[in-house]
Amino acid sequence: MNYKELNFREKYGEWAIILGATEGIGKAFAEAVADSGMSVVLVGRREQMLNELGESIKARFGVDYRVICADFAQPDAAEKVIAAADDLDIGFMSYVACKHQFGTVFNTSWEDHMAMLQVNVLSFMHFMKYYTTKFAERGRGAIVNMSSLTGVTSSPYIAQYGAGKAYIMKMTEAAAYECRKVGVDVVVATAGSTVTPTWLKNQPGGPEGEAARKNAMMPEEVVAEALAALGKQRSIVVGERNRAAVHHWQFDMTPDEAAAYMGSFYE
Amino acid sequence: MNYKELNFREKYGEWAIILGATEGIGKAFAEAVADSGMSVVLVGRREQMLNELGESIKARFGVDYRVICADFAQPDAAEKVIAAADDLDIGFMSYVACKHQFGTVFNTSWEDHMAMLQVNVLSFMHFMKYYTTKFAERGRGAIVNMSSLTGVTSSPYIAQYGAGKAYIMKMTEAAAYECRKVGVDVVVATAGSTVTPTWLKNQPGGPEGEAARKNAMMPEEVVAEALAALGKQRSIVVGERNRAAVHHWQFDMTPDEAAAYMGSFYE
Repeated sequence: MNYKELNFREKYGEWAIILGATEGIGKAFAEAVADSGMSVVLVGRREQMLNELGESIKARFGVDYRVICADFAQPDAAEKVIAAADDLDIGFMSYVACKHQFGTVFNTSWEDHMAMLQVNVLSFMHFMKYYTTKFAERGRGAIVNMSSLTGVTSSPYIAQYGAGKAYIMKMTEAAAYECRKVGVDVVVATAGSTVTPTWLKNQPGGPEGEAARKNAMMPEEVVAEALAALGKQRSIVVGERNRAAVHHWQFDMTPDEAAAYMGSFYE
Repeated sequence: MNYKELNFREKYGEWAIILGATEGIGKAFAEAVADSGMSVVLVGRREQMLNELGESIKARFGVDYRVICADFAQPDAAEKVIAAADDLDIGFMSYVACKHQFGTVFNTSWEDHMAMLQVNVLSFMHFMKYYTTKFAERGRGAIVNMSSLTGVTSSPYIAQYGAGKAYIMKMTEAAAYECRKVGVDVVVATAGSTVTPTWLKNQPGGPEGEAARKNAMMPEEVVAEALAALGKQRSIVVGERNRAAVHHWQFDMTPDEAAAYMGSFYE
């Protein structure tokens, strides 16, 4: 995809903030919007990796970067990040950060539930409220958030993650409809298996893992579809295979059957 | 529906806790489970109404009741309610409480967003974690939570409500699958327009309001379908008309079109 042609800098503003930029899909977003001409605020937990990414982006695309270290599981993280970037002309936001933990709802501690809620719902919503407001005031901007197939079906044994992804999907879809009247392009991209470091860690070895890797999308493919949808669609499922899966679940299965299908992977 | 035949007291335990019991669907749940033989913990904001409901239930069904006043928009509400009911043999929980506010995501204050998040997500999750754990330990129990069509489509101009209802739906579906192995029956019931005091307040007058009232379900119908599904299904849409709507949205519309349809009601 030729991101230079998208010319996001002229369309949306000088800076993009990528929330969860360290690796995987967030890193691919940062590189794509930098290629389109925007400078990037890289937000994540691992300072050194973010600095290396920033330097690489600066060298490759000739744009500026700023690194902000934050752990979105902390209740004050969103507020601090917003303050640390508020001198910049930000016109693009992408929330990619997410947190999961395998286990049942009842065997997961309340502290672990809250950490996931903080990352998947509360910090997300804090940024969403702040940047939709800011972009609506300036009459332009773009927001691209990531959801997941786990939020389409519900996801036993990773329930907090799936429910949070459903929240992000429905919040972003609704905000996207509201924002179309104030010049702000918003889209939520629902991804399936994507070859990210976190995803790879959770894959089985042997032929099963091999098959999973063959069928998964690359982060760059996910990002290309998401950015191509900006201003045209408000909710998309990325990837032909993922779209076929959603179609199959909704047309051929009850919600109970779809949840059981997802749950069967972890039993 | 003959609730006596369900014999919930023998099946699930002596007490049911209804979270959001004051009126509408919550009140109908309290009356139905009392009819099935369970004593009821009635939780809500309005003490006098809850006391009157408790007295009426005691007189009609010969069961005991306890009133606990709580506002689920307060961060410590769930913890306080749990402590105030923890001496009882609770075997049934229903989370009916919800909070909505019309407006765009960006014109709604962060405080108002947080109050809705607290009721629709955080307090719900606190109870969900606590009672799934407790019921799993005792090897029996039942949970019936309420979701809404606004969580199926996403809902512009009432986005926080819709996203919260999607969260409740996906969390409950996943927990229901996990809980089937530990003897706990869990179901989430997705309702559409239901003739409750809150719903009536938001209806237009004249022939339009008249038509809406004619097509809406009664709380008792919603509750009858939800309780009949316990132990048989884990996610249901109540009412033929609502099931037809969900089918129509999923088969004939894109998510963008479904969101636009929901948003068109408030423009």
